[in-house]
Amino acid sequence: MQDRIWSTQLTQHVGERVRLAGWLHHLRRLSNVSFLVLRDRQGLVQVVIEDPALADHLEKQYHESVLAIEGIVVAEPQAPGGVELHQPVIDVLAPAHEPPPFDLFRPAIQAQLPTLLDHAPVALRHPRQRALFELASASMRGFRAALRALDFTEIQTPKIVSSVTESGANVFAVDYFGRTAYLAQSPQFYKQIMVGVFERVFEVGPVFRAEPHATTRHLNEYVSLDLEMGFIRDHHDVMATLTDALAGMLDTIRAEAADTLALLGVVLPQVPPSIPVIHFAEALTLIFKATGEDARGEPDLAPAHERWLGDWAQREHGSDFLFVEGYPMAKRPFYTHPNPHRPEFSNSFDLLFRGMELVTGGQRLHRYEDYLVALNGMDIEMLNGYLQAFKYGMPPHGGCAIGLERWVAQLVGAQNIRETTLFPRDLNRLIP
Amino acid sequence: MQDRIWSTQLTQHVGERVRLAGWLHHLRRLSNVSFLVLRDRQGLVQVVIEDPALADHLEKQYHESVLAIEGIVVAEPQAPGGVELHQPVIDVLAPAHEPPPFDLFRPAIQAQLPTLLDHAPVALRHPRQRALFELASASMRGFRAALRALDFTEIQTPKIVSSVTESGANVFAVDYFGRTAYLAQSPQFYKQIMVGVFERVFEVGPVFRAEPHATTRHLNEYVSLDLEMGFIRDHHDVMATLTDALAGMLDTIRAEAADTLALLGVVLPQVPPSIPVIHFAEALTLIFKATGEDARGEPDLAPAHERWLGDWAQREHGSDFLFVEGYPMAKRPFYTHPNPHRPEFSNSFDLLFRGMELVTGGQRLHRYEDYLVALNGMDIEMLNGYLQAFKYGMPPHGGCAIGLERWVAQLVGAQNIRETTLFPRDLNRLIP
Repeated sequence: MQDRIWSTQLTQHVGERVRLAGWLHHLRRLSNVSFLVLRDRQGLVQVVIEDPALADHLEKQYHESVLAIEGIVVAEPQAPGGVELHQPVIDVLAPAHEPPPFDLFRPAIQAQLPTLLDHAPVALRHPRQRALFELASASMRGFRAALRALDFTEIQTPKIVSSVTESGANVFAVDYFGRTAYLAQSPQFYKQIMVGVFERVFEVGPVFRAEPHATTRHLNEYVSLDLEMGFIRDHHDVMATLTDALAGMLDTIRAEAADTLALLGVVLPQVPPSIPVIHFAEALTLIFKATGEDARGEPDLAPAHERWLGDWAQREHGSDFLFVEGYPMAKRPFYTHPNPHRPEFSNSFDLLFRGMELVTGGQRLHRYEDYLVALNGMDIEMLNGYLQAFKYGMPPHGGCAIGLERWVAQLVGAQNIRETTLFPRDLNRLIP
Repeated sequence: MQDRIWSTQLTQHVGERVRLAGWLHHLRRLSNVSFLVLRDRQGLVQVVIEDPALADHLEKQYHESVLAIEGIVVAEPQAPGGVELHQPVIDVLAPAHEPPPFDLFRPAIQAQLPTLLDHAPVALRHPRQRALFELASASMRGFRAALRALDFTEIQTPKIVSSVTESGANVFAVDYFGRTAYLAQSPQFYKQIMVGVFERVFEVGPVFRAEPHATTRHLNEYVSLDLEMGFIRDHHDVMATLTDALAGMLDTIRAEAADTLALLGVVLPQVPPSIPVIHFAEALTLIFKATGEDARGEPDLAPAHERWLGDWAQREHGSDFLFVEGYPMAKRPFYTHPNPHRPEFSNSFDLLFRGMELVTGGQRLHRYEDYLVALNGMDIEMLNGYLQAFKYGMPPHGGCAIGLERWVAQLVGAQNIRETTLFPRDLNRLIP
């Protein structure tokens, strides 16, 4: 049996007999001829069927049946891609048992989001759906390559943990051989510990948040692109590294997923050499002056205010990205480093991307004695491992975390983060 | 303040004043001079201290205190690396609060494994301990690069799942908003579903096994390097791809971690262009003839028999690797594809690496009707999402999974898999 080639390789084989394999994407019967569209990993190809018996046989197959097709490659300017397959011999490798719940051959699936998610295994086959996860894949690759170039080391840290990292309420409990353990809300403690080992580390992996609210921008499990680095002056060094990482992610998408961008009609943002920065307090003052909404004294930005700041960054700086730094200490986690000159504000930041929080980061405490104060009253026993790192000498350090699904959602303008999540987990959804 | 440079960059700066930063690895006082060894991410450097007051000050610091040091780079053939730092100005960025629980400056840590694991945040700082995880990092990078070159797409699939994938007994339960969910024992269902989308996928991520036994080669959470591919003839296509992936992992280690290999004294194995293959039944016959131990009729290989086969592969084929194919269907999971010619045996394989099972893989069922038979009596409702993939047409496909920690353990000859796990999770260990 001949080896198959990809649909995208056909143009190199004009005049030859080749073997393709893929899914029955569409079949259109005309009076004298039928056109079958085969979909494989790389794209679509048109197959011309002149034999009525073969066309009859294929008409009995549901869309999405798996086919192997041998035929002659013919240049045809009218055909999608400029080539098509003639004189096909078609083998049904695995029939579909039902028609798909929606038409996969149309430019977009005509179905509501819950229907798409219920049928994710088949909905994801649509070229536009699939393309979203090609962007995710290229983004991970770019993140790793950019950090690798900056001497970061990849780590994989445990997801079953003995204590909460971010906040006690929003954690999933696991029955661990009769004991209660938790799912890690972030790799925070471990990436800090590993700064003591490698100085610069990153991790791409799942994080788990048991937040019981249902919004269009939150998930209960998502993929976090984490980095952490030592020997920083303050959080600005983390912001500079994050800027490099984002530029690397976009470079990789641009270089390796150009077809995907074209299919989706996505225009990538430019990462400015230096992303504009605004202080949290200044941001609230701006919003107050412009809108009359007085959020001064609040510990965080409301989503509407993030959107306002996104527009402002676009207007004033021509930037899709905006750093907001200096969030009040009040609502930041215990390991947050205060601004030494204005201790009510933290050396932390959020990165807004097109008006939505994409990244949270900052400088962390690094002195053992500061942790003993910050953890006053907490269960030190469970944090014993974490505290070891500081007891035995830790440099000034900081880091941040990008939410992968949110990143892709903002890139493509998705209204709901579930659109850019393979198999979302939320209050109501645990299947598929 | 001057930017720091890495210890490994010193040779490019002889005669210049530079700034280094890192950990107080060791201090040795002689009558007229003291030698401080500073450790950073990249290596060690010797700092010569002639000022008695400075030496007095440093002697009060515990090992592992974090220092920034400015000084003049001097070529000194006697010094480690051929250079040392003179006329240092030393800033203690963060003191250690206790002496470390063992000496990190000795060639190896003098402590038993449980002590090392209890103090992992500081034990991992030892250059030999750290080196193990540089191998892990390079291995992941090589795995991804090799598969990327073969047109595989990276995916990230959910770890909180609604049903068990491998076997019902060995699964961790999660309280998911009042419902019982589980931690994924493998990405098996999702990577199969995604073959329907991308044809070729891989995932690097955590898997969770609630096996209550305590051995030197099992963990309850580990990192799995998974791949799955469509349009295969049978499991031999998976074995060929796995061979490429392993070669890629070793190539990356060789190219990017040569110093690490030298430090650990590790000699990498060669991956033969074609790894020898033996049928399961033939393997048991060989063992019976050679040892008199009759395990014919058993559904799996005992660890001792894997070791025997590892020696045999070395002896007969000069290979560190051996494929054992055709395990009996009896003990393989429900999605396993039988050998069409000998249906009591499966189209599955294990890869033994130096006499230990490193990889399990095989061809999967791909026809919807075969799943309905295989799942007869199981809770189909929970598997509805998985079954969709087959209902709407799936090609012949298969895949495999490499255990990252076991891979590194076998590479370096570690006796216990916990030695090559950052923060192991087992029956008794959930901290740090």
